[in-house]
This record gives sequence, structure tokens and C-alpha cells, in this order.
Amino acid sequence: MIRRELVEQIKLKKTALCVGLDTDIEKIPSHLLSESDPLFAFNKAIIDATADHCVAYKPNIAFYEAHGVKGWESLKKTIDYLNSDYPNHFTIADAKRGDIGNTSKMYAKAFLETLGFDSITVAPYMGEDSVVPFVREKGKWVILLALTSNKGSSDFQRLPMQAGGDLYSSVLTKSQEWVEDDQLMYVVGATHPKAMKSLRNQVPNHFFLVPGVGAQGGTVEDVMVNGMNSEIGLLINSSRGIIYASSQTDFAEAAQREAKILSQKMAKFI
Amino acid sequence: MIRRELVEQIKLKKTALCVGLDTDIEKIPSHLLSESDPLFAFNKAIIDATADHCVAYKPNIAFYEAHGVKGWESLKKTIDYLNSDYPNHFTIADAKRGDIGNTSKMYAKAFLETLGFDSITVAPYMGEDSVVPFVREKGKWVILLALTSNKGSSDFQRLPMQAGGDLYSSVLTKSQEWVEDDQLMYVVGATHPKAMKSLRNQVPNHFFLVPGVGAQGGTVEDVMVNGMNSEIGLLINSSRGIIYASSQTDFAEAAQREAKILSQKMAKFI
Repeated sequence: MIRRELVEQIKLKKTALCVGLDTDIEKIPSHLLSESDPLFAFNKAIIDATADHCVAYKPNIAFYEAHGVKGWESLKKTIDYLNSDYPNHFTIADAKRGDIGNTSKMYAKAFLETLGFDSITVAPYMGEDSVVPFVREKGKWVILLALTSNKGSSDFQRLPMQAGGDLYSSVLTKSQEWVEDDQLMYVVGATHPKAMKSLRNQVPNHFFLVPGVGAQGGTVEDVMVNGMNSEIGLLINSSRGIIYASSQTDFAEAAQREAKILSQKMAKFI
Repeated sequence: MIRRELVEQIKLKKTALCVGLDTDIEKIPSHLLSESDPLFAFNKAIIDATADHCVAYKPNIAFYEAHGVKGWESLKKTIDYLNSDYPNHFTIADAKRGDIGNTSKMYAKAFLETLGFDSITVAPYMGEDSVVPFVREKGKWVILLALTSNKGSSDFQRLPMQAGGDLYSSVLTKSQEWVEDDQLMYVVGATHPKAMKSLRNQVPNHFFLVPGVGAQGGTVEDVMVNGMNSEIGLLINSSRGIIYASSQTDFAEAAQREAKILSQKMAKFI
């Protein structure tokens, strides 16, 4: 999905919500466990219930790989369902990959071609030749980790560099030379409202994928105020707060309700 | 596999060789393409031919994921075969994972439990709470990226920090506080011989997993001279140079020959 289409969807639906599919067999309602593929049955119900209130879905690949081959089957069914029934939703493989060139190329193939996601999250530690192989045709995106939402983001990302600025700031500066603006987004956690403002000043044009709203403590209002640009420029993710809003048979309705509440908070700013 | 057992195997076989299974459907001999699972058929032949001349195997996960569900089936067959027929070989899931705590926990489950590898490579960018969930029972290992073998290692890993030292040096210092010595190894590329010497001084006790010998330009002699410690402390990886030594029906014999040559170079120092 190219940038213009994504911006149109956000303005049309008045939401920047991304629903994170961190689908955990131990947390989904027990009545789904008798299904032949419980993870996919859960995802399908969540997607059908929330599609009107979000613009993107983000399966968290770890939760599928934990089940080995069976988990990859659930992942494939999920992305196939999104691509066939919800082609106007942006899809993110939350995979945090990154390796030497020939290997990153294989990960790009896995997620952007074999599975057919619009985008993949990428870790920057190994530098340019680990990131560039993820760049493919227009409409496919690299979403590079800049400043993540977790406590450990202070361990390296926020360390001051001798040349000035923190490490994440170097990631922003260098990566803009490697990838064109409309194929590159950054992960910026909702848990750093002040840093998000200065990050937005440093990177005025790029989309931010923002985790950390809800369970991790960030608020939608802070993100909209500090992170928005003239094209909105935000995908705000919520996973647990939406998909586990209820552990009973009403889980899909509960997810819809939570997605709607988050979207209404965003609509005030769009 | 615990440290004592690994050191014993290295001394017994007089080799620190790790064979990298970067198994690419476009590079394996064409007569294997009629097999029901060409990737596994290739791996099985390579493993049987090289097992006497190495102490470890390292499937590169990207090469399997590029084929989706089918690729994960080949990966599972490969690790199952290693665990059943070659229990004295150390196994490495070269996956370069790392995410927030609940997600790293799922990746740890995927590779160390569901698939049953001895170890997994982990990227440090997201800090302590992204690394610690990979620590499990004794005999399971975290192999953390420190200074990688690729050109992009100069983009961030070798940037000087305001507090002194390069970024990779901060990774070494902090991570030693997070994980015990005998469950933690570091990735140190063979392409930085001088840095390897200073790294070994900073980290005298830990095993290094060393990529970059052969196709990437590093030499066994430099690695042994600069990287060895009193318990050897090295796993030296070669992938392409061994597994693609021949693209004909003699590929397994050719792989054996190359593995033997590399091991003989190591034996002089062990």
C-alpha cells in the first residue's frame, strides 16, 4: 500500500489505529481451543469485529513461531485472510529482523513476498547492508526501530554519542540516506512523549509506528499532540488492550468496543 | 549443551568449526530438486559428511522462512535430525531476534523449546528486557551480537560513545551484568582481527561465535591467534565455503573436504 492510499484511509476512517495480533494460545477464550486452528479462529473474529475502526493490522511473529510449523500455518492463514478480505488495511509483519545482506534479503522475501505483508519491522544494529535488502517495490515498507517503548530502550538507544545526539538519533540520520521517505517508517514508543516531539522535528515527513499505548502506559492524546505531522503520519498500535478486552465468548464485541474508544480519541485530532 | 561438554568436544575433535546451514534452493545441486524436501535432503547429506570435522551446526533461519510453512518444515526436520543422530554437536538457531519482554519470551520458546536448539543469536538494540527472556536452563545459550562481520558494522556498532568506547563495547559491558558467563556468547566477526584482540581482553571468559571466515574475507589463523582463550572459547563458522564447495552430485564429499581443511588449520592451535 503506497503512502497516498494509507493517508486516505486514515482521513476517511478518522483513525490511525493499528491492531496488534499478539495472539497467545494461553490468553484466547477457552471455547476457541476446540477449533482446528484456534489462533486463526481468534484472529478472524478480531479482524471482522475491528476492521471498521482501524487502518492496519500487525501480527507479532514471535507468537506464531512459538508453535513451530503449526504457528506458521496460522500466520499464513491470517495474512491471506487480510489480503483477500481487507485489501484496504495496511499489514505489518512485526518481526524485528536484520542480518548480513544475503540473509536480510531472504527475510524480505519471507515476509514481503512469500507471505505478502506490506511492511516489516527491522532492527538497525547491523547497519546499512542489513537494512537496504528490505527495500522492494513502492508500496512495500521498511519500519526501522528508532526509540522503542520498553524499559531497555535506555540501555543503548538513549546513550549519548561522542559526535552528539543519542544512538537513536544517529539511526534516524543515517537511515534517511539509505531508504526513500515513502518506503521508510520508524518505530517510536508512546512511552517517550518528550522525545517523540523532538523526533518529529528531526523527521518531519516519515510515518511513525507507535507501540506502547495502553498496557505499556502511553496515551493516545500525547502521541497525537507530539507525533502528528501534516499528513497525520502515525500508526498507533494497541495489542493486549484490544484483543484481550474480554476472555469470554464476547471477546470480539469487547475488542470492537476498545478499538472504537481508541479511534474516537484519535478522531478529535484528525 | 553445557560449557564443559562443548569444550570437551572441541579438544577431543581438535576443531572449533561450526557449519552454517544457509541452505538456498537456488544453490543446491539440481538433482536434489526432485526430492520431497530438497532443503532437508541437502542438509542431511551435508551433516552426515561433515559431522566428524565440526562441533556445531548453525541453520540460518531466514533461508527457511523464505519458503514459508514448507521452509519451517525443513527447519524442523533438520534440528530433529541433529538432536536425534548428533547429540554431541552444539546447535545454533541463527535468528538475530530481540523484542519487548513478552515477545522475546515467545521467540525463546520457539527456538530453544519448540524446536529444541541449544542456542539462539540475539540482537541487542532493545536492551536488557529484550535479552534476558532468552536466558533459560543451563545448557541453553544466548549468543548476543557484539561486532558483526559485515560492512554495516561500522554504521552503529563502531560509533564512539560519549562515555568512552564504541557501542559494541557498551554491549559487552552491560550484557555481562544481565546473563551468567556460561549461558552467554558473543558474535564477533572474523573481519576485524585487531578489534578481536581487544575484545578478547575485555571479555576473557566468554565463547565467541565467529562468522566471516572464507567468503567474507577473514582467516582462521587470525581468529585463532587473536580470539582464543584458555578453553579455546571459539566457534568459527563457515557456511558458503563448505556447503557450496561443489554444485554437482559430489557436493557432500566436497563439503567434507573443505570442513576438513578448515579444521586442520584450527588443529594446529588446539
